Amino acid sequence: MTKYCSFKIGDRTSYGLVVGDGVIDLGKRFYAQYADLKALIAAGLPERVAEAASDAPDYALADITFLPPIADPVHIWCLALNYVEHHSEVQSAGRVQELPKQPALFARARDSLTGHGQPLLHPGVSEQFDFEAELVVVIGKPGYRVSQADAMSHIAGYTIMNEGSVRDWQFHTRQITPGKNFYRSGSIGPWIVPASEVGDVDALRIQTRLNGELMQDDVAASMVHKIPRFIEYVSTIAPLHPGDILATGTPSGVGFSRKSPVFMKPGDVCEITIDGVGVLSNRVERD
Amino acid sequence: MTKYCSFKIGDRTSYGLVVGDGVIDLGKRFYAQYADLKALIAAGLPERVAEAASDAPDYALADITFLPPIADPVHIWCLALNYVEHHSEVQSAGRVQELPKQPALFARARDSLTGHGQPLLHPGVSEQFDFEAELVVVIGKPGYRVSQADAMSHIAGYTIMNEGSVRDWQFHTRQITPGKNFYRSGSIGPWIVPASEVGDVDALRIQTRLNGELMQDDVAASMVHKIPRFIEYVSTIAPLHPGDILATGTPSGVGFSRKSPVFMKPGDVCEITIDGVGVLSNRVERD
Repeated sequence: MTKYCSFKIGDRTSYGLVVGDGVIDLGKRFYAQYADLKALIAAGLPERVAEAASDAPDYALADITFLPPIADPVHIWCLALNYVEHHSEVQSAGRVQELPKQPALFARARDSLTGHGQPLLHPGVSEQFDFEAELVVVIGKPGYRVSQADAMSHIAGYTIMNEGSVRDWQFHTRQITPGKNFYRSGSIGPWIVPASEVGDVDALRIQTRLNGELMQDDVAASMVHKIPRFIEYVSTIAPLHPGDILATGTPSGVGFSRKSPVFMKPGDVCEITIDGVGVLSNRVERD
Repeated sequence: MTKYCSFKIGDRTSYGLVVGDGVIDLGKRFYAQYADLKALIAAGLPERVAEAASDAPDYALADITFLPPIADPVHIWCLALNYVEHHSEVQSAGRVQELPKQPALFARARDSLTGHGQPLLHPGVSEQFDFEAELVVVIGKPGYRVSQADAMSHIAGYTIMNEGSVRDWQFHTRQITPGKNFYRSGSIGPWIVPASEVGDVDALRIQTRLNGELMQDDVAASMVHKIPRFIEYVSTIAPLHPGDILATGTPSGVGFSRKSPVFMKPGDVCEITIDGVGVLSNRVERD
């Protein structure tokens, strides 16, 4: 599995390949052609760059800081209520009515997300800080008004998001945007796996563990609006840019809609696993 | 009135001061210190830069293309239902219930906005393309969890937005984000006027003319959530970054809630005037 990450080592920001317990610094080798991972993705993840995977690692994983794989996507599109059972649990909590016939789209700002292994920031102004495991599509090929039939060809790869949500702020009005944009309340990563190496996307299993306890567990096949439909929908609104992030919604099992609600507290560790993509793990700290 | 703009001349992007019918190219003079208007704003719009206003213009206004004043804000925050009479007209159209007690926040992506004088793109996939005149706050000083008492000191200046909205897409689900993000469906500019030169913000009159006919006409004093509250609210969620854009909501008179709905068609000219800030004018073209 090829794993493209963005990282910081000392004061320097770069991108690379994760191999075993180490990182091969692609920025050092290819900066002149590709300034960052977004540029490498825009160039189609060239084969000769991936060949660096046979080099010896430049750094130990323990010595780098993982950053969000794409530093400044033009779009971070997210979907609410995009898993059937998650819709049911939110409906039971009295928060929505019918299953949305169209994708329930909202946006996150780039500074609402941190990298793998970095602290998820508990907002302090609310105790209703909840996790949301999501499979993330990273756009490679630009496009505008893309059909469902062509949609999958625009995907560079996949990553994982903890779409951390502050529930009371999410329900201040009908617009959920406030509760979805707290500073570093979410995370993304650890890396991007090329689409060509991810087999049957529907079969991808998405699991959340909070302090080791299984909280969410479903497969991507349970999405209401599947990935080709999501790409068609957002690309009808605005062009797809290389590095655009599409978070495909969360399965059931989130904290706020449980009979005894569970929220994340400082010191908790939230871990999201998608087999064939990776494990995104973050400790919660008070902001 | 000092007018800071971003513009394109030939293939070059720069920023400058609009003086009479000309532009003084600040990028040419100060690029080494301030790469763009966002950087100049982050530096507090230094006095010695404004002094270039006494130079002879470098270009005629007719020869430049206005760009959005800030190319890549970290945040473009917008408020829905933030004028009392606008809320009433939307309520009459059966679209909302009570006046929102909290700011109804959503986000626009940077590529949803074009500059002054550039075509507003009619989405084609919908005929319900509507105008929304808005006073825009441009953040200067960074801040996080800013109090209402300190809020105004974080403002660099003001500009204007046509927060162009595709109504049927806005009402696909409860999330209005889709209808608010069509490619170049909105505009911003023409320039930023420093806060120090805008007197009583409440007194600012906001007017929309569609093909010369007055459609919206109200003053900023009619906002439900005033600017200090807006800044406090969004800065509780995420830090304020220099160049962040806060669109403060639209007055009554929008097209879709009229007895005979009015929508923008290709060939229309939509002009938004805020006395003491400027006139933002765009012709509508089919995308």
